[in-house]
Amino acid sequence: MSKCRPCVITLLTDFGYQDAYVGIIKGVITGINPVVKIIDICHNVSPQNILNGAYLLYTSYKYFPAGTIHVAIVDPGVGSKRDIVCVKTRNYLFVVPNNGILSFVVKEEKPEYIIRITNNKYFLPSISNTFHGRDIFAPVAAYLSLEIKLRQLGKKINQLELLDILAVKAKNNEQLEGNIIYVDRFGNLITNITKQHIKSLEINYKYLKILIGKKKIVGMSKNYADVNKGKPLALFGSTGFLEISISHGNAQKYFKVNTSSRIYVR
Amino acid sequence: MSKCRPCVITLLTDFGYQDAYVGIIKGVITGINPVVKIIDICHNVSPQNILNGAYLLYTSYKYFPAGTIHVAIVDPGVGSKRDIVCVKTRNYLFVVPNNGILSFVVKEEKPEYIIRITNNKYFLPSISNTFHGRDIFAPVAAYLSLEIKLRQLGKKINQLELLDILAVKAKNNEQLEGNIIYVDRFGNLITNITKQHIKSLEINYKYLKILIGKKKIVGMSKNYADVNKGKPLALFGSTGFLEISISHGNAQKYFKVNTSSRIYVR
Amino acid sequence: MSKCRPCVITLLTDFGYQDAYVGIIKGVITGINPVVKIIDICHNVSPQNILNGAYLLYTSYKYFPAGTIHVAIVDPGVGSKRDIVCVKTRNYLFVVPNNGILSFVVKEEKPEYIIRITNNKYFLPSISNTFHGRDIFAPVAAYLSLEIKLRQLGKKINQLELLDILAVKAKNNEQLEGNIIYVDRFGNLITNITKQHIKSLEINYKYLKILIGKKKIVGMSKNYADVNKGKPLALFGSTGFLEISISHGNAQKYFKVNTSSRIYVR
Repeated sequence: MSKCRPCVITLLTDFGYQDAYVGIIKGVITGINPVVKIIDICHNVSPQNILNGAYLLYTSYKYFPAGTIHVAIVDPGVGSKRDIVCVKTRNYLFVVPNNGILSFVVKEEKPEYIIRITNNKYFLPSISNTFHGRDIFAPVAAYLSLEIKLRQLGKKINQLELLDILAVKAKNNEQLEGNIIYVDRFGNLITNITKQHIKSLEINYKYLKILIGKKKIVGMSKNYADVNKGKPLALFGSTGFLEISISHGNAQKYFKVNTSSRIYVR
Repeated sequence: MSKCRPCVITLLTDFGYQDAYVGIIKGVITGINPVVKIIDICHNVSPQNILNGAYLLYTSYKYFPAGTIHVAIVDPGVGSKRDIVCVKTRNYLFVVPNNGILSFVVKEEKPEYIIRITNNKYFLPSISNTFHGRDIFAPVAAYLSLEIKLRQLGKKINQLELLDILAVKAKNNEQLEGNIIYVDRFGNLITNITKQHIKSLEINYKYLKILIGKKKIVGMSKNYADVNKGKPLALFGSTGFLEISISHGNAQKYFKVNTSSRIYVR
Repeated sequence: MSKCRPCVITLLTDFGYQDAYVGIIKGVITGINPVVKIIDICHNVSPQNILNGAYLLYTSYKYFPAGTIHVAIVDPGVGSKRDIVCVKTRNYLFVVPNNGILSFVVKEEKPEYIIRITNNKYFLPSISNTFHGRDIFAPVAAYLSLEIKLRQLGKKINQLELLDILAVKAKNNEQLEGNIIYVDRFGNLITNITKQHIKSLEINYKYLKILIGKKKIVGMSKNYADVNKGKPLALFGSTGFLEISISHGNAQKYFKVNTSSRIYVR
């Protein structure tokens, strides 16, 4: 792993921007490593929604320099027996609860090494039952940025928990059944259907039919401005997935759908 | 242009805080220039509202050290034929879509040099149609912070697109007709009427009448505490424009108005 | 006071994330001290709610390295005669309006030195009546990070304004009457009742009754996962106060209460 200098720690959480939780985490990190760069990926993961966090981490982790330490905390099991793990891949370190939040990432970056974090030498002196972000994740990430050895954190384990990610179903090479996995601020609907899936249909992009609820889009677009204002369109979004949008508008409101709503392509 | 050391890149977008878009942009910048300082101006520009972004950029750009690179992305035309430009003024560099987002700024800082950005050597290797913030704006700003020459980015052009900013109308030196151009988090109503405009009326501040909807304020105040709690007041706000507020309250709710609502002074 | 290198300035305000106010403050600071680290604690303090700001500052200030300069701006009196003060404690400097925002902090860190800030040599050249965050707080904090002497800022005063913080009432060692002082993003209800208060009741944790509105919780939990999904629980939260939660749910919606609602323990 080539190292970034100065080292970067990213934060992805469901702590929101209403409270001081994220600021506190940055205080703890800065107290241990005053020169590390801390970059927010996002703190508005839908509360306790691991799928949402897994998707956002997947879309962003690879745009950071090799050696970046990614801390992702969507942790409904905080204080219970769930593990906190450090996962080393070819290019990155991840400090996460072992609850499936790496489900998308590990499809691209194979875990080379998984440590169950137990060594309280690298925790805050007093551990609360409700805020491990401050008491465990933050100091562990900060010490990792000071290049302690992974094996000092705890014992190696072999298996990561993974989410049952809703798979795309293909029917006789004629139809795909997928799901909306994310809705962004603009109301764009991101699905779990990739370019590969659609190629398998062997249908010209111009004639593809995309069905959402009782509505239909015919043909793929290249960008948001390809159709008239207020009209729906389908395109491959910036993350590589099939995405449904309204030109200058909000597709979630237009189609009245939500995360995990079905979508068909034929 | 005197240079800031270390260099600063600011970000102003309508990407919001719900998604990972802003974090991804910071990852790309940091990968190219690990020591540049990245400062958020705001990411809650009203989606695709160029006027809103232009106003916020205008109120903030000049408070940053000379040499700062301001990246402002409110870009409803992303992926279509609109240009991305780098604009050099006496003190700053701006990397923006050429869609009017500099309309207020150029009233203060004359563009000395405008480049249409086309050299994909400074882009990410693969360009999406929907997220030029990540693929073009971020790497271009990062390379600029490493002090590449402007002319390496593309060819010089002569003209910037500007918004038809709603002008203040004066009627016989007796009445001004202006507009609300921004409503802030506190519900303060910022108008396009300046101290200069009001001086042209030659009326003592004490006797000025400000009409909004069916309501009236008489006289200018110096600060929010000049009137009793819950009462409306008019003052010159921190950006130099006439501003309507409620002491300890919310003027937008009180007057039931919005951006572009009319306001009269006489 | 041991010094952090490089120095840290934190920001806690009610300026929100909708406007450019926070970005402007960072621009001013960076222009004066380009190498200082600026860390956001939170900018969503409920507008003009000093109690809310005082609580958030209290939960976070001590997690930052000694020498940190904490700037907290919840300032309904901006532009009126309220003072701006610099308060030195054993480990930190605070730059705040003298309006009670340090009420919780000074219970832990005694002020050693209080300066009424008046020396406009350390302000921006032109002072607005409505945005002292930009014109006074930001430059003063930046100059402090360059280690100017406190006494250069103004004259020493002896007294800080403090909030009448709602005190916990004990009735015959049999019942405590407290209040909800904060509701976080997850809907957790944080009260002003501490472990000390509850120990004074001399009741086994298992048999404690906590009454909120017309509902009752029996017994204390150790963490959010101690009860079944959707069930209410009481525990000592990460800030040391008695906290009411719903496992995987939202206690504010469940109990239909708000900041300053009463809570009884017996």
